[in-house]
Amino acid sequence: MAIRVGIMGYGNLGRGIESAIRRNADMELGAVFTRRDPSSLCIRTEGVPVVHADEVLTFKDKLDVLILCGGSATDLPVQTPLYAAHFNVVDSFDTHAAIPAHFAKVDEAARASGHVGVISVGWDPGLFSLNRMYGGAILPDGADYTFWGKGVSQGHSDAIRRIDGVLDAKQYTVPVEAALEAVRRGETPTLTAREKHTRVCYVVAAEGADRARIENEIKTMPNYFADYDTTVHFITAEELKRDHSGIPHGGFVIRSGKTGFEGENRHVIEYRLKLDSNPEFTSSVLVAYARAAVRLHREGVKGAKTVLDIPPAYLSPKSGEELRATLL
Amino acid sequence: MAIRVGIMGYGNLGRGIESAIRRNADMELGAVFTRRDPSSLCIRTEGVPVVHADEVLTFKDKLDVLILCGGSATDLPVQTPLYAAHFNVVDSFDTHAAIPAHFAKVDEAARASGHVGVISVGWDPGLFSLNRMYGGAILPDGADYTFWGKGVSQGHSDAIRRIDGVLDAKQYTVPVEAALEAVRRGETPTLTAREKHTRVCYVVAAEGADRARIENEIKTMPNYFADYDTTVHFITAEELKRDHSGIPHGGFVIRSGKTGFEGENRHVIEYRLKLDSNPEFTSSVLVAYARAAVRLHREGVKGAKTVLDIPPAYLSPKSGEELRATLL
Repeated sequence: MAIRVGIMGYGNLGRGIESAIRRNADMELGAVFTRRDPSSLCIRTEGVPVVHADEVLTFKDKLDVLILCGGSATDLPVQTPLYAAHFNVVDSFDTHAAIPAHFAKVDEAARASGHVGVISVGWDPGLFSLNRMYGGAILPDGADYTFWGKGVSQGHSDAIRRIDGVLDAKQYTVPVEAALEAVRRGETPTLTAREKHTRVCYVVAAEGADRARIENEIKTMPNYFADYDTTVHFITAEELKRDHSGIPHGGFVIRSGKTGFEGENRHVIEYRLKLDSNPEFTSSVLVAYARAAVRLHREGVKGAKTVLDIPPAYLSPKSGEELRATLL
Repeated sequence: MAIRVGIMGYGNLGRGIESAIRRNADMELGAVFTRRDPSSLCIRTEGVPVVHADEVLTFKDKLDVLILCGGSATDLPVQTPLYAAHFNVVDSFDTHAAIPAHFAKVDEAARASGHVGVISVGWDPGLFSLNRMYGGAILPDGADYTFWGKGVSQGHSDAIRRIDGVLDAKQYTVPVEAALEAVRRGETPTLTAREKHTRVCYVVAAEGADRARIENEIKTMPNYFADYDTTVHFITAEELKRDHSGIPHGGFVIRSGKTGFEGENRHVIEYRLKLDSNPEFTSSVLVAYARAAVRLHREGVKGAKTVLDIPPAYLSPKSGEELRATLL
């Protein structure tokens, strides 16, 4: 029987889940939940109910797993523990510093209800975390480096949009090639934020707005831009739409380390993602972990889990025999 | 209490294990076992017994895990099931086609004795298998490509050495850059063996040997060379020693796949290894999985496992709390 998936929240991520489910023959979409008026939502899968979030508990026995597609700032801290009391859940909670507290709350709720809650799934946190972990365990005498980009940072784009006189904006995070190359060569430099990434901004200014002031406000914005070399390009709304409407992203996790009695041999492990669509790729990761959550639950496992806790084979619809015969 | 590791077999891999243990504070070397005369072996760790392989059972209660460093052709098919009847074991069995049968034998022995046997650990099979698995589960609508090199293939080097008139030889497997680039761009070409890799051979010929005949015998050797573009360089024994005494290796696993309702977005996941010493890196992977084997055994798990079955966090000496706080 197919794994019945519910989607909570129908933004970029929710739509990504809907499309990813179609590429997984063992899964089917059971329902989409929204806090908006359900009749205002037009989903892409025929015959699947769109239901108000308040009614989600009526689907308790009709879903094997609920994928939570809300934001990390205010939605998931409430939703994931709440729904883990009734469903197997998967989220993409990505406020790195708050993960331990989030884990504890989800763990308590999921243990009490006998469900599995997989948190912080995606690529960072997620696949990048996995690679930091494997790399560190295999080459303990070494260092790892995470580079992001080239890709769109929604948070930074939003920060620019809040500046007076800015109509729209898109910010790309770009790894510094020289730093990347040094790390790839097996060097273990100490790198500042500025030495690792540059920030490139495309800004649509209101007519008559003071561009020099806007550029200065961007470049000196604490936390977001002040610690980086930032380039600002003013473009038209048409150019922004034509050239910058995608949501590409990606990055690198590179571990280098030494082995041998004298540390004489050097090894470099590089993991790279190059993504046309950040939300669709993240959704694809969430769907694979939704499968794992259901399989763990069927085996009687309960509580919160992260990508670090889940045996890789649980992500695949293939049997252990099939995986051993074809992938090892 | 430290994890006590035994090493069965003291070749390149065994020495790699010995040096890797020093970089893992939670592990210690308990004994080295050999089929040679133990007094002929000079190991690098003081105070550790070197014992004949026939005496290994006397160490039953003195070791937490035994890492088997023999070859896949004749040693491991016998040793891994044999020792899994008495110890937690880890091997690097790498005859891909024979893995299912090897798994079944080790599983039976390990279940019966209540131990854990982790087989086919290293980088291929091993870390590359993991990446093929994660990639396929996340991007089911796609293809993966494994490239090896640039690196020394012992099997191919040995095959050349068996040719009449050859004193010594070293063979490098080299990925074809154009194929690698096409795959990296997200194309999914069908590639022949010849289109993926070239083979470069450095050969020391006996004085007066017919070099043209040797070169022809190499290039036309079925399975090993006939299906590849092969280059043969004749060099002196001194040059071979000076320029080709290392055992570097590495390679790439690249998965590309499509997402979106119309398959409109493309994603590329690339995993790359660049290794100064193939045996020392493989040893480092074996040691991390030895830790996992012991932890699983302490939790009451029994039977054969592969890298696909083992939760990533089990490889690390850090606690779940620590990993969540620092790596996610």
